[in-house]
Parts: sequence; structure tokens; C-alpha cells
Amino acid sequence: MSRIEIAVIGCGPAGISAAITAKARNKNVLLFGTHGISSKVSKAHMIRNYPGLPDISGDAFASALTEHLQVMNVQVCDKQVSAVYAMGDFFTLQTADEMYEAESVILASGVMQGKMLPGEESFVGRGVSYCATCDAALYRGKTVAVLGYSNEAVDEALFLSEIASKVYYFPLGKETELTDEAGLSVIREKPIAIKGQRKAESIQTENSEIKADGIFILRDAVTPDKLIPGLNMDMQHVNVNLQMETNLPGCFACGDVAGKPYQYIKAAGQGNVAALSAVQYLAAKRKK
Amino acid sequence: MSRIEIAVIGCGPAGISAAITAKARNKNVLLFGTHGISSKVSKAHMIRNYPGLPDISGDAFASALTEHLQVMNVQVCDKQVSAVYAMGDFFTLQTADEMYEAESVILASGVMQGKMLPGEESFVGRGVSYCATCDAALYRGKTVAVLGYSNEAVDEALFLSEIASKVYYFPLGKETELTDEAGLSVIREKPIAIKGQRKAESIQTENSEIKADGIFILRDAVTPDKLIPGLNMDMQHVNVNLQMETNLPGCFACGDVAGKPYQYIKAAGQGNVAALSAVQYLAAKRKK
Repeated sequence: MSRIEIAVIGCGPAGISAAITAKARNKNVLLFGTHGISSKVSKAHMIRNYPGLPDISGDAFASALTEHLQVMNVQVCDKQVSAVYAMGDFFTLQTADEMYEAESVILASGVMQGKMLPGEESFVGRGVSYCATCDAALYRGKTVAVLGYSNEAVDEALFLSEIASKVYYFPLGKETELTDEAGLSVIREKPIAIKGQRKAESIQTENSEIKADGIFILRDAVTPDKLIPGLNMDMQHVNVNLQMETNLPGCFACGDVAGKPYQYIKAAGQGNVAALSAVQYLAAKRKK
Repeated sequence: MSRIEIAVIGCGPAGISAAITAKARNKNVLLFGTHGISSKVSKAHMIRNYPGLPDISGDAFASALTEHLQVMNVQVCDKQVSAVYAMGDFFTLQTADEMYEAESVILASGVMQGKMLPGEESFVGRGVSYCATCDAALYRGKTVAVLGYSNEAVDEALFLSEIASKVYYFPLGKETELTDEAGLSVIREKPIAIKGQRKAESIQTENSEIKADGIFILRDAVTPDKLIPGLNMDMQHVNVNLQMETNLPGCFACGDVAGKPYQYIKAAGQGNVAALSAVQYLAAKRKK
């Protein structure tokens, strides 16, 4: 496939704004977002301070953004990007079933909802995984736990139950209709820590400790430096300058992931700047 | 009068966004803008990349912003701020006929259209003035030249003609219907430099040199460090960080005046950040 000029990761106001401006500048742009507009947007009750759209509901705002993407003919790819690798003068984006190449990347993936669990960070890659598609094969015939914060977590848990011998599913976002079935148990307890010695071995809840070989933590967003190795962070935010440049040439960040305040209009503004910085980056590269 | 909590200078998308967010946070805010929404906005042909308002005309966008100000009940003051002085823990704003006090200031005054003339900068305060109201009295019975870039320049020139003995008016923005009358001559030549020894003495055009005791340069925006003494600049832009803080505590900047790109959605986003930073600044001050 032809190389994307600007890949935008994240379908909230920041990513949508970046894609719209990139498209307005005639760039070949692909917007990655699972399940359309970020659900954080459509769930908003009332947005009072997005100038030009007074007192708009989250639903109506999401519709307006969707319409704008259609008017600009922005291509949206309904896949979750699980990793981005800087390859020198381009980037490789990994999704469940396909690799993409992009000359520049705009990260607009939002902030992780909920804090990390105690033990989570130290066991990443040693029993803790953020991607069922990527790592399911490691747990064939074994026991896994799934902490389901995201909308797609149920699907992922069902997929894992085809491979693992036993899945413990913790519904931690919205309530699930999933019930116990062969090889899958729904655990309605709150995880408070991940425990283990050299690797993750169990999930501690208030009332019990559940052993598992693998623990899949499925949030809507992973921390950016886990998504893009080498990215400089300040706590949970990507370090950017006023041009939305990160420390990685050709990689830009905008919106909540680039810092507070968490506001739609701020995110949209930064998306615009990130896109124009990417356009400049591409132009400078062409001149070399 | 009671002290304003947040004074916003400039009625483009940055200033409007700042005022809307400040109001959403229940702050006592006053938005200074001459003649309503910035004419740069309503003159825009078509805005393609303001997310949520696809392919909107400048006129329609200006109307949407006006409506938003009304919905939020933002008070707009139709006066030009000619100077802002940092007084320690508050600011004094000078307009033609009144002084205002504000606890914090958000500068959203846009960028100056057109470059400075050769000689202009060195003669500021020595024959070159940016404010007819402030400095007219210095030229009673004398000869002045008016370089009219702004919408209000004709009114200012007529006002000056009541005080000075002779006014040379250079229409440099839109075409004027002003014609020669007693004490006022319209000069349809392009100024290329301001000349003088210790002070400004004349305007050089391609064809002639016109002597004047005072030269009033009336643009829609003056450079920010002339408006707010002590403000750190980088060329024509105010130095800001990602929180839109300037070097002066309590003074924030956003929109075009804070740097490129010159884009409506970027301006609106920065206005939001500036307002929330001002809100934080006020809260911190209250705690002291």
C-alpha cells in the first residue's frame, strides 16, 4: 500500500481537528479511531465553551464532528493502533491484522482513564499485556484475567476464551451482560493490585486473590510511551512545545495526551497546530 | 467601579473563547473590542477547518460567535485599550475616556497588519504616536500626519483636525471617501519611511517628503510590548508557554499575538487555555 503522509491516532476533537486541517492542506491522511468519534465526546452532557456552538450536547457535537469529517472526505480507519515504531524517516503502525507506514504521526489518543494498578507497571511484558490480539498466543491453554475498562473489552475477552483454557473477566467500565460460560467467569470484584514475584501471578481484590498466567488490561488508551517507544513524557502527558512537536522528529501530539486543561476547544486548537507542523515537517523533508 | 477579575483585550476568536470560558467559570470578565467581532473574521471567505462548523463563511462564523457571547451573557466594551500597566497585583487599562482596573489580563489583540515603516520604531514617543486620543493635545496648532490603516482612522483624523492646524491623511487600509477640506489634506501616496534627526520630522513617499510635527500611525493592533510595557516578545509575538503565561504574572496571551499558525481554531483553543490559567492565577492569589 502507498505510504500515508500523516497518520492521526485518536478520534476525539484533537485527532479530528488534525485530520481536517491535514486534509484541507491536501495531505494523504488516515485517521485511526475505534468505533468512530470518541465516546467521551458523545457522553458529555452539555458543552458550554466551544466557541460558535453555544450550549451543545455531547451527542450533537459528535454529530457535527462526524459531518465535518464527511464533508472533508477524511478516511477513518476503525482499528486500534497497538504500537508505533520510529524507523528513521518514517513510522510503522501496528494494528491487529495489518501494518501501516506513515511519514509522520500525530498522537491524539487522550489520557488513560483510571490510574494504574499497584504492580501493573513493573509487570508490563511479564504477564501484563494491553493487547489481546498481540499476546493471546502466549497464553494458549493457560489461565488469563481480563480487566475490562474499554468498550471492546468483552469482545477481546471472548476471543481470549477461544485460546486460553480459562478467562476471568472483570467488568470495570460499563456494566456487562456477559455471564459465566464454559471457560469464562465474570468476576464482579474490584482489583486493587497485581501481585507476583518475577512475573505477574495474581490479581488481588478486596475479598480474594485470583491466580492468572496472563493479565490483560484493556483500557481505551494506553500510556503514550508504551504505544510509541522512545517518546518523552512528563508523568502521563507527552512533552510537547508550542508547535506540538515531541522529541521524536515527525511525531506530534495534541489534545488531552499533550497536557491539561482537558477541554474540547483546546484539543481542537492543538490538533490544528499539530497538523500544520506535520505539513511543515513533510515539506522540509521533501527539500532534503 | 468594581475591579474586573479578567480583562480580555481583543474580539477575535481567541479573545471571545477566553471570555466565554472565563464566564463559564463564573468570573467577572470584560471583553474589550472595538466594533464587535474582529473584522478579520467576518471578512473571511470560507473557513474549512474549524471542527464542528464545516465550510462556514466568515460572516456566519462571526454571527455564531456573537450569538455565543450573548448566550453566555459576556459583557463587551466597545473601547480601544491604548495601554496596560502592571501595578503589582493588578493591572490598569487605559482607554480614551476611562481607566479600568483588572486583576488579570488576557491579551488577544492579533498581529499587526503590515510591517513597521523604516524609522517608525526609533521615533516612538518622539513624534510617532499610536493613539490620537492620548497625544492629540501635544500637537495643538501644529502639523500632523495620520497613517490610516484601521477602520477608525478617519474619525481619528477628523478629531485631530479640530486640534492641529493641519492634518495630512494617508488612507492605507480601505479606500476612503474623505476629501480635502479646510485644515485636512488626503494624500494618496504610499509612505516608505519616517525621517528625522532627534525626532520624527517628515514622511517620505516615492514622490515627495511631507513635513509634520507629529505622525499618528493608526493600525488595528499595536505591538504588544508598546501596549503593555515590560512584556517579553520574540519579534512580533508575545512569548508564552503552553499555559499561555507571559513573563508578567497575571498577564496571559493567546491567538495570533502568541505566534503562528494564524488559525481560528488554534486561536480559540489558546483562548480557552489562557482563561483557565487566569482562573488558576486568581485562585492562587486568593489563597495568599
